[in-house]
Amino acid sequence: MIAEKMKPYLKNNSAIRMMFEEGRRLAAEYGPENVYDFSLGNPNVPAPAKLKDAIKEILDEEDPVVVHGYMSNAGFEQVRKAIADELNGRFGTHFAEHNLIMTVGAGSALNVCLKTLVNPGEEVIVFAPYFLEYGAYVRNYDGVLVEVAPDVGSFRPNLADFEAKLSEKTKAVIINNPHNPTGVVYPEETIRALAAILERKQQEYGHAIYLLSDEPYRELAFDGAKVPFVTKYYANTMVVYSYSKSLSLPGERIGYVVIPDEVEDSADTIAAATIANRISGCVNAPSLIQLAVARCVDAKVDLAYYDRNRKALYEGLTSLGFTCVKPEGAFYLWLKSPVPNEQDFVAAAKKYNILMVPGTSFACPGYVRLAYCVSYEKITRSLPQFAKLAEEYFGARG
Amino acid sequence: MIAEKMKPYLKNNSAIRMMFEEGRRLAAEYGPENVYDFSLGNPNVPAPAKLKDAIKEILDEEDPVVVHGYMSNAGFEQVRKAIADELNGRFGTHFAEHNLIMTVGAGSALNVCLKTLVNPGEEVIVFAPYFLEYGAYVRNYDGVLVEVAPDVGSFRPNLADFEAKLSEKTKAVIINNPHNPTGVVYPEETIRALAAILERKQQEYGHAIYLLSDEPYRELAFDGAKVPFVTKYYANTMVVYSYSKSLSLPGERIGYVVIPDEVEDSADTIAAATIANRISGCVNAPSLIQLAVARCVDAKVDLAYYDRNRKALYEGLTSLGFTCVKPEGAFYLWLKSPVPNEQDFVAAAKKYNILMVPGTSFACPGYVRLAYCVSYEKITRSLPQFAKLAEEYFGARG
Repeated sequence: MIAEKMKPYLKNNSAIRMMFEEGRRLAAEYGPENVYDFSLGNPNVPAPAKLKDAIKEILDEEDPVVVHGYMSNAGFEQVRKAIADELNGRFGTHFAEHNLIMTVGAGSALNVCLKTLVNPGEEVIVFAPYFLEYGAYVRNYDGVLVEVAPDVGSFRPNLADFEAKLSEKTKAVIINNPHNPTGVVYPEETIRALAAILERKQQEYGHAIYLLSDEPYRELAFDGAKVPFVTKYYANTMVVYSYSKSLSLPGERIGYVVIPDEVEDSADTIAAATIANRISGCVNAPSLIQLAVARCVDAKVDLAYYDRNRKALYEGLTSLGFTCVKPEGAFYLWLKSPVPNEQDFVAAAKKYNILMVPGTSFACPGYVRLAYCVSYEKITRSLPQFAKLAEEYFGARG
Repeated sequence: MIAEKMKPYLKNNSAIRMMFEEGRRLAAEYGPENVYDFSLGNPNVPAPAKLKDAIKEILDEEDPVVVHGYMSNAGFEQVRKAIADELNGRFGTHFAEHNLIMTVGAGSALNVCLKTLVNPGEEVIVFAPYFLEYGAYVRNYDGVLVEVAPDVGSFRPNLADFEAKLSEKTKAVIINNPHNPTGVVYPEETIRALAAILERKQQEYGHAIYLLSDEPYRELAFDGAKVPFVTKYYANTMVVYSYSKSLSLPGERIGYVVIPDEVEDSADTIAAATIANRISGCVNAPSLIQLAVARCVDAKVDLAYYDRNRKALYEGLTSLGFTCVKPEGAFYLWLKSPVPNEQDFVAAAKKYNILMVPGTSFACPGYVRLAYCVSYEKITRSLPQFAKLAEEYFGARG
């Protein structure tokens, strides 16, 4: 007697649960130290000490009725002000507190945007490979998900296919930069080209097309890669952020959406998004952690930790003969399966206690994703296992 | 260009915002100590000291990667176990951790239930007066809200009208006990009678009808009033809870839903609800505060604080000639407007800096709601103002 819309999710869920159970089974059988689980995007870097201190200070110094109480559905004003100021300082933007809505993570922020914008039957474009939850989020509002084919090789947006997929019904486009699952960072030229296409299509169709830029990995860029701040390139942009990765707080569910004044009908859009945050049942982002992140706006993610992992895994795997997209951001490595059906490759890896996510789970078969937000030791210990796996495909080396 | 469904909310929102702005304006003009704001359900009792200690202990003792990390979408197992055990001890139930899903407050919990159950066009019954957000929650899933007329006088469920409003299309029924906005506690006989009607209608229609019992005020019952635990009276019950009121944590957004094994297709229903929690964008309830409430399952709300307020306000207002429903639970007093249009009464009260919520905001005109979760001093200082207001309607007394 569950709702019809929920039934397809139940079927897929058992596949995910099987993978999770498999991880547990392997850990129980071989010991967790002998299982090389690269399947989860749960950071292994602890939250900065500053965050712990901030929470304690807030508990000791501030009125608990305020700390744990209701505030505006958009979040504490001073929290939004602190974040707006920090963004303005870094990106030369001009946001005020009214441009930010604090949300229950980036997941809720995307839902807030889609609920605010999408009418049933309207289309939302995503670029394969992509985080499959985007599909669920779009279906939540009876929107239609439209996939742009991957640009295999660069794994930047396939702009030719993008242009072909835009239609009268396109209401929004979701990008994710730095990119999960490929680790690619879209450079400024990509954002400019994307914006130019969107401007042209807005003209042609005579209505706004919103660009939703999902940026939980914004702080995770390596080798000097720059992550463009998208509101500067396209007016109808909403930026979605989460502290899950930058402050290692994925379980706390704290993020925000920025809706600039330049967005069409911005006052109504901001008001509607604030209401969407409320009536979704979230009401507001968790209060204590709102106050805590505001005290940590200048805290930095331990980039060196991820960078060491990135290099060790990338160099280790390519020297074994595997082909990977060189990761420039986030904490994912996108590896080409040595056989066309990457599910076979994932199954083979399991024999060596290596867990990876098949590209099919990101609408892009033939590849697998490795999340290197694990300990460095886990990576170095996994390489001999990968060597055995490589031997199956490429034969003994050296 | 916002979604059509959001447009009606924007209109209503300006009315709420006007009330909020009015409160601010009065506070700025007369000083906050001279404004008697009974409009908000934001507890004035601080969270128990135990909660603060629990948060600090968790931060000092536990691994931050776990404390702030992802867990099962249903919540930490040990948290759900601790809560299940506590419920079982108090109510003689037999819940295990799999029967609980931790949620972003009761608002999200209700959304999780409705998303799990309701197909477009299916009906969800509520009893007037009721928290108007229920309507938004039902519309989120294209359900149809059906209102049962109030039983003016007792303000218990109007069972005759309830029976008349049940139909083939009824998928769920929402009750709220203790009750916002009336302060009434539904006794066991009411729950039994309601369950009997539902059992009969399930038979007649040949499908399950789910009872969603929204119980954020469960711990707030006075004069020895007992709040029945509804799963014991009706199998297809889901209990929704929040720590907003019992631990004074409304801003933290922490609650849960209980889905007993006795619910039809319970395994699928629990799995679907867990997925609903995930794809709504919440993913999981905030992690640190989950761990903290689990350490405070035996913490008690300061009932004496609210009881003193309740008595002072009830006795003060009735002695001035006002007619109130005697409040037995929650922290609301439901006052009969001395004039048919309670909006006029609310406007008159504002002249004395008294802010109340018109019953129309709960689909029950002719009454007003006063939230007495304020300081005791605020109540005693408000009574001379209420006396001036009473004089307008009843003339000078004594």
